[in-house]
Amino acid sequence: MTTFRVTQTDAHSHARLGTFTTAHGDIPTPIFMPVGTAGTVKAMLPTMLKEIDAKIILGNTYHLYLRPGHELVRQLGGLHKFMVWDRPILTDSGGFQVYSLGDLRKITDEGVTFRSHLDGSLHTLSPEISIEIQQALGSDIMMCFDECTPYPADRGYAAKSLALSMAWAARCKRCHGEAQQTPERLVNQGQLLFGIAQGGMYADLRKQSVEQLAEIGFDGYAIGGLSVGEPKPLMFEVLEQTTPLLPQDAPRYLMGVGTPLDLVRGVAMGVDMFDCVLPTRNARNGALFTRRGQLSIKQAQYRDDPRPIDEACVCYTCRNFSRAYLRHLFMSKEILSSMLNTIHNLHFYLDLMSRIRNAITESAFHEFHAAFTREYVEEEGA
Amino acid sequence: MTTFRVTQTDAHSHARLGTFTTAHGDIPTPIFMPVGTAGTVKAMLPTMLKEIDAKIILGNTYHLYLRPGHELVRQLGGLHKFMVWDRPILTDSGGFQVYSLGDLRKITDEGVTFRSHLDGSLHTLSPEISIEIQQALGSDIMMCFDECTPYPADRGYAAKSLALSMAWAARCKRCHGEAQQTPERLVNQGQLLFGIAQGGMYADLRKQSVEQLAEIGFDGYAIGGLSVGEPKPLMFEVLEQTTPLLPQDAPRYLMGVGTPLDLVRGVAMGVDMFDCVLPTRNARNGALFTRRGQLSIKQAQYRDDPRPIDEACVCYTCRNFSRAYLRHLFMSKEILSSMLNTIHNLHFYLDLMSRIRNAITESAFHEFHAAFTREYVEEEGA
Repeated sequence: MTTFRVTQTDAHSHARLGTFTTAHGDIPTPIFMPVGTAGTVKAMLPTMLKEIDAKIILGNTYHLYLRPGHELVRQLGGLHKFMVWDRPILTDSGGFQVYSLGDLRKITDEGVTFRSHLDGSLHTLSPEISIEIQQALGSDIMMCFDECTPYPADRGYAAKSLALSMAWAARCKRCHGEAQQTPERLVNQGQLLFGIAQGGMYADLRKQSVEQLAEIGFDGYAIGGLSVGEPKPLMFEVLEQTTPLLPQDAPRYLMGVGTPLDLVRGVAMGVDMFDCVLPTRNARNGALFTRRGQLSIKQAQYRDDPRPIDEACVCYTCRNFSRAYLRHLFMSKEILSSMLNTIHNLHFYLDLMSRIRNAITESAFHEFHAAFTREYVEEEGA
Repeated sequence: MTTFRVTQTDAHSHARLGTFTTAHGDIPTPIFMPVGTAGTVKAMLPTMLKEIDAKIILGNTYHLYLRPGHELVRQLGGLHKFMVWDRPILTDSGGFQVYSLGDLRKITDEGVTFRSHLDGSLHTLSPEISIEIQQALGSDIMMCFDECTPYPADRGYAAKSLALSMAWAARCKRCHGEAQQTPERLVNQGQLLFGIAQGGMYADLRKQSVEQLAEIGFDGYAIGGLSVGEPKPLMFEVLEQTTPLLPQDAPRYLMGVGTPLDLVRGVAMGVDMFDCVLPTRNARNGALFTRRGQLSIKQAQYRDDPRPIDEACVCYTCRNFSRAYLRHLFMSKEILSSMLNTIHNLHFYLDLMSRIRNAITESAFHEFHAAFTREYVEEEGA
């Protein structure tokens, strides 16, 4: 089944326009996926997510497995029904959170044993268990369970880690294939599976990873193990080397990235999908995105500022509320502060992707890229 | 100017149906006013407040005076514009919060000196200052600055406190009248002013209070100093004595009350307006209203319950979400928990008032009152 169709390519870069078909509808690419960790995109009503036209969201397997538990979600009809979201959902494998949030106990060929960050209880995740959880959640796109190679990692570690991830990828594929034999037992019969390229910062390992994944064969390919602490120039160096190696006829997903500039640059390198907590987390911290960079709403200069966050923005927040009001809500720690800020920041990200798609459509991505880079000021360390 | 019109009265009780006209539109009575303390009804988007058809909301003078400051709100066009709410707003006088939240320093005939609960800074409120603040906020209904007589209070204290409140009421009226001479200087040229009856739990003092207020003349009359710690039977005893004494042709407002049963009973005694933090505060604590009483969503019995909070409810939350999901959100401390719970609880309160109005319209309030009291179980101390 062909689920991805590239409809246009850019003459000056690897940017491309496409349509990705899932069991819950088509997604135009390049796309950004808001993060809905625990069965909710934090501070957003589903109606508001639709108003800003989120086409697909991400759910976190690790969190949902621990609470409320994947069997409960399965019993209630799957994650779409549970959280009342009828558009596509991608679930990660839980691997990244096991390493970053859980108290890691042991990695073996079989899988990973860890303690929950919630209550210290002991759990095991493996390729088979991760796929089983994602099947219970019924997401449209599942991710392979892998080890996210940390940074820095020497060549030996990165190679060993890669070998493990590739063996696990094959097991995920097998597990997914077996489940397809009895589709009537699945929450979502149209689930797709993406492989994840690893290999640390080593070009030859990345190449090897991509080849092995393509050999196994997946519905899409992710670039994992980036944005894990390495300098940004290095991230883009690896991305630039890796992306062209990925199959042309499948979507490419850069995991956990990034800032608005990262997105534009990633698209130029041929990335089709992104996810990041930045817009939602920054919203709750009062850092709001504009076309010229981020604005910290708590600053005294906004105390009596009657203007919207961004005069060019058409989101619900900017159509209605002043910086002065948003500053007041933030200083007063009102829940509405997180709500209005999240609407704005997610709208900014989704609108940016829409502008990127329009630019590619109009064969003007090169100019868009240059203009955006000129206008947008990314602070150090952002 | 006649702003209040009683359109129907109940044959079996003092319940009455009316229309109250303000500068931002008509309000059908009996009505419940959601509390929007700091320029926001906590966890509610204005669009959602309109979806549940809130006709009027309340703003807190004490909070808005301290943060962001009434002069800032005036400069930005008044509270309606600041918080983007184009329907009626009632502001309290700040008096109650000075006593309950502030660190009270001194009460004199002139006014009250207190320290802010936010930063300990020293402030003074007086009848004149309270009215000036409420004028800067531009609410549709202002409340007189008074002393909320505490419970218990002996007769001597209650009488002295009442005398002070009545002198202050006259000063509020004078201040309001003077401002009307130069309407062009007002944020809201159609502001109304309500007097507040005090007198503690002493029938003769309550009577005296009502007579003095009626003599001064206000656009509406509130019953203050109830629900301040006295036993509920005593509250209703005082209410039953006081309400019939209030002018028939003006709205009667029972401040800070109460539970669903309190509302139904208050209406039966002739009350037209209510406000209370109960639906919004309880929502954030996971206590949800149903026609049979409150439900604590955190209970284990709701873990896998696919039903809505209340199968008879048509609010956004009940139309879409299961108890299992709402429990998950609450246990996960997700912001969406407060949002969805608040929508439901406020809808419950507003819907209750709508059902009360319909019952009066259909000359069936007596039956409604009996059926509601039979079905609704109010827990001890609720």
